Amino acid sequence: MAYFDSASSVPLHPVARQALLAALDEGWADPARLHREGRRARMLLDAARETAAEAAGCRPDELVFTSSGTRAVYDGMAGALAGRRRAGRHLLVSAVEHSCVLQSAAAHAADGGTVEEVGVDRTGRVDAGRYAGALRADTALACLQSANHEVGTEQPVAEVAEACRDAGVPLLVDAAQSLAWGPVDGGWSLLTASAHKWGGPPGAGLLAVRKGVRFAPRGPADERESGRAPGFPDIPAVLAAAASLRAVRQEAEGEAARLRALVDRIRARVPELVPDVEVVGDPVRRLPHLVTFSCLYVDGEALLHGLDRRGFSVSSGSSCTASTLVPSHVLRAMGVLSEGNVRVSLPAGTAAEDVERFLAVLPETVGEVRGRLGAPLPGEEPAGPAGAGRGAAGAASVAGPDAASPAPPGVPAPERAGADRPGADGAPAERAPAERAEPAGGAAPETAGAEGPGAEEPALTVDALGRRCPIPVIELAKVIGEVPDGALVAVLADDEAARLDIPAWCAMRNQEYAGERPAEHGAVYLVRRRA
Amino acid sequence: MAYFDSASSVPLHPVARQALLAALDEGWADPARLHREGRRARMLLDAARETAAEAAGCRPDELVFTSSGTRAVYDGMAGALAGRRRAGRHLLVSAVEHSCVLQSAAAHAADGGTVEEVGVDRTGRVDAGRYAGALRADTALACLQSANHEVGTEQPVAEVAEACRDAGVPLLVDAAQSLAWGPVDGGWSLLTASAHKWGGPPGAGLLAVRKGVRFAPRGPADERESGRAPGFPDIPAVLAAAASLRAVRQEAEGEAARLRALVDRIRARVPELVPDVEVVGDPVRRLPHLVTFSCLYVDGEALLHGLDRRGFSVSSGSSCTASTLVPSHVLRAMGVLSEGNVRVSLPAGTAAEDVERFLAVLPETVGEVRGRLGAPLPGEEPAGPAGAGRGAAGAASVAGPDAASPAPPGVPAPERAGADRPGADGAPAERAPAERAEPAGGAAPETAGAEGPGAEEPALTVDALGRRCPIPVIELAKVIGEVPDGALVAVLADDEAARLDIPAWCAMRNQEYAGERPAEHGAVYLVRRRA
Repeated sequence: MAYFDSASSVPLHPVARQALLAALDEGWADPARLHREGRRARMLLDAARETAAEAAGCRPDELVFTSSGTRAVYDGMAGALAGRRRAGRHLLVSAVEHSCVLQSAAAHAADGGTVEEVGVDRTGRVDAGRYAGALRADTALACLQSANHEVGTEQPVAEVAEACRDAGVPLLVDAAQSLAWGPVDGGWSLLTASAHKWGGPPGAGLLAVRKGVRFAPRGPADERESGRAPGFPDIPAVLAAAASLRAVRQEAEGEAARLRALVDRIRARVPELVPDVEVVGDPVRRLPHLVTFSCLYVDGEALLHGLDRRGFSVSSGSSCTASTLVPSHVLRAMGVLSEGNVRVSLPAGTAAEDVERFLAVLPETVGEVRGRLGAPLPGEEPAGPAGAGRGAAGAASVAGPDAASPAPPGVPAPERAGADRPGADGAPAERAPAERAEPAGGAAPETAGAEGPGAEEPALTVDALGRRCPIPVIELAKVIGEVPDGALVAVLADDEAARLDIPAWCAMRNQEYAGERPAEHGAVYLVRRRA
Repeated sequence: MAYFDSASSVPLHPVARQALLAALDEGWADPARLHREGRRARMLLDAARETAAEAAGCRPDELVFTSSGTRAVYDGMAGALAGRRRAGRHLLVSAVEHSCVLQSAAAHAADGGTVEEVGVDRTGRVDAGRYAGALRADTALACLQSANHEVGTEQPVAEVAEACRDAGVPLLVDAAQSLAWGPVDGGWSLLTASAHKWGGPPGAGLLAVRKGVRFAPRGPADERESGRAPGFPDIPAVLAAAASLRAVRQEAEGEAARLRALVDRIRARVPELVPDVEVVGDPVRRLPHLVTFSCLYVDGEALLHGLDRRGFSVSSGSSCTASTLVPSHVLRAMGVLSEGNVRVSLPAGTAAEDVERFLAVLPETVGEVRGRLGAPLPGEEPAGPAGAGRGAAGAASVAGPDAASPAPPGVPAPERAGADRPGADGAPAERAPAERAEPAGGAAPETAGAEGPGAEEPALTVDALGRRCPIPVIELAKVIGEVPDGALVAVLADDEAARLDIPAWCAMRNQEYAGERPAEHGAVYLVRRRA
């Protein structure tokens, strides 16, 4: 059994446990009360604040405890935006922030504010100059994570903080993933973190707001935590949070070096052991303990279950593992493959043998999933014989241009051979009006316009409607060899992951991604065969 | 040592401690994850929800866990108000709700909504008919606590719920103080509670929203807890909360009977043991474990410290014990004495001997404070000789009508003899314009108008500016005997508690409270001597 999902949550650190138990006995009373139990609780709360502030790199009176990291981000962003309302309502965030930052941004937009996302490169890193260039006179707040929670890439926080300071814009740094490893460099204005990421208990987050930062808490409030975190304080949790943060910091340097080497080994070995794998994220400027890779022709959920059965707990940004059935916004923003995605985040103390065992079982686990999905074997595609490697796992229907109902938009959709998608009834779909065959935008690197490949008849159409990734990609891979060099293959798919994974497959296979066309259901993705 | 402040918070119940420790080992992972640690956490969360829902009297899918009772109220009220926005923006609350309800109401008002407070009688109880009569066609939400947290009075929730149902208005019941003793009767729509009130850990609140109640969560949200309670869930806390709620319920009936008898004893004995005490709250329709009384001529903070030194931890609604220096809004709404206020709330398991010890030390503690403040002895006032019993504890200045600078509004204010209040400099205050001598409203039972006693010259003026209660009342008591029967004494005071305590003193001493006049600083309270 090995738990490799420390970026989600880690078990309680022994120091946290000890502090929690002591504070359950000593710190259960209301610290606002005048009696001895109240005074004792207040002393513990003050002590926790001093310890946490020292680790966060701020003054105790700049730091409040919240009920979670999410709450710290929600209230920190709302308070900073409201405090700067006179400056304007422009909010700048990176495209790879934690979802709680993006949820706050969406709430700000719904409230009439303006939100701008700064994109990242293929490693998931923001360009500091580009971020600085997006600051405006009416920017109320800028947000940038210290390091990404899904791919581990560190962000140029110090440079961005300097640019923000020059522009007079407060910078909020979500340090949830990095605070265990050290304080955040640079002149940040607000900082948020979450204790259960470093071995503290759940139920404790940190919000630091530097003196001088305009801050106007939103919503109802009481007198707790400087009016910034209402509700009865969870003193056992915050004391345990503070004590464990100090404890993990004492171990941080040595442990970071050790885990960094283990992650380097995973980064090097996985592509050697498993064919068709893309290791993502910055290989150097990264968190010490975290690595993410994606496996072509693999269903992320099946891979997670396969690894779980073998005793390894990991997480995934694949669409099939999310309740929303969309791939991780981080992988999307990076433009990398999302299918068969695995995030390995090693907790402190991970044994090298466990990593070796993981590397030993990964190839068979991936192979098992690929086999079950009928994925093409290496070398079988794209130039392999038609139908080679096609398995029994629910193939999509394939129609040539002369078949009864080819599926490019603007002409009648084909009957669906694989009628196992919800609502599919085998009846011909309605005619998609030709004027809808316009650029769809989105993450597609190219979009088929009327003058481009959009006007061109595909040689072959794969109908993968109702099929989840990686099936659309697998079916594409199986048939691409059937068309002549330079001909188009169309993939009709309604799984959001196809938008990311078909271009990613093209890049991995040196095929030409020729853009996307809208369709009545889902979209049509065009690929030009390059032999 | 006896802790008699269970209405603030109670130590962790042994069952909660056990559940918490188990869940720290088993429930630290993210329940949204697919791996075994995640599945185990999810099972624990589901189990906690079933247990808590059963105790709250709702379905598991109607209940979410929040990070505190305050958060449950904030988010419950905001969600219900937003869900009913089409019906209107009128919000009905009782005047004695917990401050978190009133904070939410204030936020609603600041956002353009309408808030109406329904008053209470002298026992702190809402009249169900009056509450029902305040429901309007545009009432979006009604809030009524199950029982008051300061005086223990139970509210007619079932009757009000019926009226709300008839009117089609959802009723939110804050059950923080009563849920340990049993489920809330009647057809409530939303219910909130806080675990640390029943021996659960801090960091766990409950929000139940009945199916069919329109509810639109406000602010940013994630997919946790049905979108109603964002952030990483504190599974150890909620499991401990649920387990301890079930445990205290099993003991509730017997313990309620036992504590009820102890509280009856306090209610009966305190007025016998201590002169000039008002026991407040409904003597019968009340929480089993809670009793509140106020002691004339006593400083609440000094009384708390005196009891604390003798080993008893209680709380107080006196203004001097609040950071805001205003008396409890509950006591204000009831119109009862607020000085020397003590709330005794007995935790489960309180020994009868501890209550006897409390009754034994209370008289000497109260006497000590009264002596230090130079309070008149029983029988010394109001007809006693001038100056009798006046101590050294900072007497206010007293001026007769012929003195150099009498202080009724509309004429120059006197020089302040006791210049120990902030900003006092001994200089004559500016002339208060006569047109400001108009009714001040507020909690004063009578207001001095131009035709009433307001036009009448007081025989004596007590300048208690800058003096905290109970000093203004003590000084009034000392001098009332100096004026003839039927003459007016004016008390100039800027302590908010005077507004409540001077009329309360009049009622206790059979003197006539003759209203209030505005003054440049504070207000002038008029008392007519009745011999």
